[in-house]
Amino acid sequence: MNYNKCWLNYNLIEDYSDKEILSNITVCGKDAKESLIVDNAVNELKDAFRKILNINASCSYLKNEKEYDEANLGVILKLRDNQELHSEGYLIKQIDKGLHIEARTDKGLLYGSFDLIRRISQGETLDGLNLMENPKNNIRIFNHWDNMDGSIERGYSGNSFFFENDQVLINERTRDYARLAASIGINATVINNVNVLEAATDLITDRYLNKLAEMSDIFEGYGIKMYLSANFAAPIEIGGLPVSDPLDKDVILWWEKCIKNVYDKIPGFGGFLIKADSEGRPGPFTYGRTHADGANMLAKALKPYEGILIWRCFVYNCLQDWRDYKTDRARSAYDNFIDLDGKFDDNVILQIKNGPMDFQVREPVSPLFGGLKKTNMILEVQAAQEYTGQQKDLCYLIPMWKEILDFETHAKKDGSTIADIVSGRTYDQDKCGIATVTNTGNDYNWTGHDLAAANLYGFGRLAWDTGLSAIQIAREWVTQTFSRDEKVVSTVCEILMKSWPTYEKYTSPLGIGWMVNPNHHYGPNIDGYEYDRWGTYHRADRNGLGVDRTVKSGTGYAGQYNEPLASMYEDKETCPEELLLFFHYIKYDYKLKSGKTLIQHIYDTHFEGVEEVEDMIEKWKGLKELLAEDVYERVSMRFSMQLSNAKEWRDRVNTYFYRKSGVEDEHGRKIY
Amino acid sequence: MNYNKCWLNYNLIEDYSDKEILSNITVCGKDAKESLIVDNAVNELKDAFRKILNINASCSYLKNEKEYDEANLGVILKLRDNQELHSEGYLIKQIDKGLHIEARTDKGLLYGSFDLIRRISQGETLDGLNLMENPKNNIRIFNHWDNMDGSIERGYSGNSFFFENDQVLINERTRDYARLAASIGINATVINNVNVLEAATDLITDRYLNKLAEMSDIFEGYGIKMYLSANFAAPIEIGGLPVSDPLDKDVILWWEKCIKNVYDKIPGFGGFLIKADSEGRPGPFTYGRTHADGANMLAKALKPYEGILIWRCFVYNCLQDWRDYKTDRARSAYDNFIDLDGKFDDNVILQIKNGPMDFQVREPVSPLFGGLKKTNMILEVQAAQEYTGQQKDLCYLIPMWKEILDFETHAKKDGSTIADIVSGRTYDQDKCGIATVTNTGNDYNWTGHDLAAANLYGFGRLAWDTGLSAIQIAREWVTQTFSRDEKVVSTVCEILMKSWPTYEKYTSPLGIGWMVNPNHHYGPNIDGYEYDRWGTYHRADRNGLGVDRTVKSGTGYAGQYNEPLASMYEDKETCPEELLLFFHYIKYDYKLKSGKTLIQHIYDTHFEGVEEVEDMIEKWKGLKELLAEDVYERVSMRFSMQLSNAKEWRDRVNTYFYRKSGVEDEHGRKIY
Repeated sequence: MNYNKCWLNYNLIEDYSDKEILSNITVCGKDAKESLIVDNAVNELKDAFRKILNINASCSYLKNEKEYDEANLGVILKLRDNQELHSEGYLIKQIDKGLHIEARTDKGLLYGSFDLIRRISQGETLDGLNLMENPKNNIRIFNHWDNMDGSIERGYSGNSFFFENDQVLINERTRDYARLAASIGINATVINNVNVLEAATDLITDRYLNKLAEMSDIFEGYGIKMYLSANFAAPIEIGGLPVSDPLDKDVILWWEKCIKNVYDKIPGFGGFLIKADSEGRPGPFTYGRTHADGANMLAKALKPYEGILIWRCFVYNCLQDWRDYKTDRARSAYDNFIDLDGKFDDNVILQIKNGPMDFQVREPVSPLFGGLKKTNMILEVQAAQEYTGQQKDLCYLIPMWKEILDFETHAKKDGSTIADIVSGRTYDQDKCGIATVTNTGNDYNWTGHDLAAANLYGFGRLAWDTGLSAIQIAREWVTQTFSRDEKVVSTVCEILMKSWPTYEKYTSPLGIGWMVNPNHHYGPNIDGYEYDRWGTYHRADRNGLGVDRTVKSGTGYAGQYNEPLASMYEDKETCPEELLLFFHYIKYDYKLKSGKTLIQHIYDTHFEGVEEVEDMIEKWKGLKELLAEDVYERVSMRFSMQLSNAKEWRDRVNTYFYRKSGVEDEHGRKIY
Repeated sequence: MNYNKCWLNYNLIEDYSDKEILSNITVCGKDAKESLIVDNAVNELKDAFRKILNINASCSYLKNEKEYDEANLGVILKLRDNQELHSEGYLIKQIDKGLHIEARTDKGLLYGSFDLIRRISQGETLDGLNLMENPKNNIRIFNHWDNMDGSIERGYSGNSFFFENDQVLINERTRDYARLAASIGINATVINNVNVLEAATDLITDRYLNKLAEMSDIFEGYGIKMYLSANFAAPIEIGGLPVSDPLDKDVILWWEKCIKNVYDKIPGFGGFLIKADSEGRPGPFTYGRTHADGANMLAKALKPYEGILIWRCFVYNCLQDWRDYKTDRARSAYDNFIDLDGKFDDNVILQIKNGPMDFQVREPVSPLFGGLKKTNMILEVQAAQEYTGQQKDLCYLIPMWKEILDFETHAKKDGSTIADIVSGRTYDQDKCGIATVTNTGNDYNWTGHDLAAANLYGFGRLAWDTGLSAIQIAREWVTQTFSRDEKVVSTVCEILMKSWPTYEKYTSPLGIGWMVNPNHHYGPNIDGYEYDRWGTYHRADRNGLGVDRTVKSGTGYAGQYNEPLASMYEDKETCPEELLLFFHYIKYDYKLKSGKTLIQHIYDTHFEGVEEVEDMIEKWKGLKELLAEDVYERVSMRFSMQLSNAKEWRDRVNTYFYRKSGVEDEHGRKIY
């Protein structure tokens, strides 16, 4: 096997107390018996019990309703129409010698089974267990930016395990991927890059559909719907039509036929993800149509099959002139979509990046979430660490995503946090959820950096239950992945929890973002994008830096928020300091709440960031004897890359601002 | 024909006065009759006479010595052992109705014939012609950086016309290339890139030698020796040896066999050009050997065939740390080679770039020329405008090369200009000369920008006669290429002559160089290399910029020059101002000799540079009716690219230094 099983690694537990109850598995009900998903659930349970506990559980199926009502021995999987349960929810409760997993659907039983495994794998007792779990988000979806040639855009974990040389790959890893995804509650996946180029345009044709159907069958056995990124210009590129105008009859007919054919081959197909009129991709603008025209046309064609159309809001002018201080990329998602609120069909979902720029280490939450009121929304985060260390540097992102989810948009008086909105609670919607750009590839450990798997794991867990804390997720993940040894768990958790603040310290300061090497985005380059066309500027000069995004004197971006947020961001005294340079141009001698000047804060955080990486490495070294050698070595190598990256960031940022400001470090440390 | 003939375009002259003498061509002497070169010379004359003058000249061969001594009618090509003539020199003199071209060798006759054509093509009278020409440099060599896949490193004129898909191309263009080269006196050419990668390593093997022999035959018919860039690691890569240590017997044997085979196939082969231990290329350092060890080993193997080994001196640390203020890339050619002076075999030539960095718009002359006294040298310039506008922007380089050639190194009391040294005059050497990295490709006009052909033409003419002036060369080229119309000639010459100063004005100031986009090197990026590993820094801060290369407080580079140069560069008051920032860190408020501060000089030159481009464009527009439409349009398009590039340079440089210095432009012009 050229890959590991991540958190499904199943380490043996010698002294587990509740073994007895796990030696029988009973599946109740005809529907359950005939479900591939339930089969998989049972097999997962058996496999886990065997590996973790050395138990070879027996399994029986009861068809008779009376019989299974009375079954009360071992693990019992039951379908029951409990109205308290979400269609994918489950409950687990112990009654005497029976551990009941109940759900309304086979998918619920699968999630319940993985929940049980998670508990056992962490060594938790089952005694007195009584819980009900409903997913907080209906759509919990992976976005893979995998290309047909096997490369992965913003992939830092090897090549694609879905595609190679324009062929679809199906092998043992396909199933293990589905197992990993299902075990954390993922119920949908987009397998190809949102930039749909060359052969990928053909994925929706007979060239690939039979093979994709085979893959989709595997996914469906784990409750996962396959989605595809589609090319808005497909009617031209593969249909031979002269246009892809969404109001053109031939175009509409072409898509209808295309989509019918997709569903003929893959009845459980989820739908399309579309990146249109963005960074050079085709879209409805070419024909003077709106995003709503484009999205609704596709949505109508998907509708008969209950297909979903997900439309990305990452639309901005990527040909900006750096001389232009008025155009503001941060405004663009809101400006492009706010007037379309209410104009999208009910099976259209807008997918909105967490921040207004692009997955920087620190951004405000996109104001579009607080603006749209009659539109289905998906929150898009990025597990792939494009701007947060590229899985060379450690950056545990769950704390960031928690902050985003907890952010109160003030769209309503109560209950309008991001978590509320994208779960559908705020506006009583059901087609909503959370997406992540995944960080996987065909590396042995799936995620390049072994510890980066915590982001993949955590995404699924958080999408299921946005109420989980970052530390809780970290503990779950470490325990299942590495060891139940408390030193390992607490040390790795400490390292994980500090990693985002540390990364933020040694990279770009106080929300300004960027300052990275163009194109590949790893490592510092303070002016790398400063005079470029991407709308990503820091505007540093000899007196200060930052972008004035106020209504009063800047780009007006702050005004896109609901009150009291707009006023809070507008004033540099009330603006949260971690976002100060995102909203304001600030002089180097400005006093922060810490009493430090801005320039001294820049110096200090950059020295601290490197020290903290050194400290992480020391902590990791202390685990050498407690971890598998290969894990220890792989992570150690990543840490050494991180340390040199952190030093490069520290020195370049400090030198850059020292040269600009001329202000000496108060502590006389080395600035080059 | 998918290409034009450049300066061999042969425009008809209606009213030429001296037609009569050109209607007969007589070749005298057995040796001449049997020479392919003389055949080509005769055909060139006939072709030119026909196209320019509508004359179908007759041709006869005289074998009898007496007869040809008396021949005195028409154009007479004669071999004669005139000791005043260099082996490639010639004389042309009119005696009554005979126009005698005399030379010691067939090559001399070819060059004399092209001289005659050049005069006719410019409409000069032949009446009373009496001249003797000897080339000032023995080796006048093109370096093509063509790759076997057809790409050209730093090529801005399309793809290679020598290679495609790992195959050697031979077609009509091969001959026209040789004609163009010979017409300006080029007698050697290296057809493949100095970075010898992949299939190019095999050029010295039977995989390619038969085909190369065919190409070489065409070249030899025009007096051009074929050279190849060779891979120092060839004994490993194709010989299967474990090392390429120049002192290893098997390695030596391998090269001897290899070179014997090359000469078996191509008896007129010139030799090798080697880039070793430079920018990641293999070399003798791996084995603890010196450049002399490496070069001499190859030279000895070439010696039996009178082959030449050209060894490039472009050796520097390309993994420098930007934090390191002591290491200086400018020092490296001198530091690497000065101690090896006198240690190279007599058929080794060191090829030295004109400046110590890398073909910047302004550099001091490499001090290595003034240092070496017992070593054959070739001056390397770059017609390919890697850092001077990439044949999008116009930059007529002959004035720059003239300055270089005229530079007095003070290696001797008298007669030690660069022109003296590389011609062999200073130290009485015969294996010396001038090389250019060419600017050609398979574009219709050969050089991307029609006007960039002036650099190709000018290189040849200057290599032949370093005494020619830049304006003289420009006039020759314009007249032959476009028109004898005086408005065309004077306007294009004016545009050409201003183009280098203009380019210098809108790009990096006062000799500091760089400030370009990394990798491709086109367009401004002030900090593009500032924090990188290439040793190319400007060290700008809020007070000033420039690199301190003095002996007293800097890197000591200034001390590599002979006196009085060293002292002149050492002191910022005597340092030539165009190189001020190359040698000194200078504050923004430093007063230049013009009375302007440094910062105001930066602003002014950048505004002026753009204005001058606008002025060039106006001048060019005035030629619309006088030029062929396609030429006019192609050049106009290039000028519009240049204008937008110039504005980008102006605005980025000015904004960058305004942000750093905080000093307002005295004239209140727009700085962003």
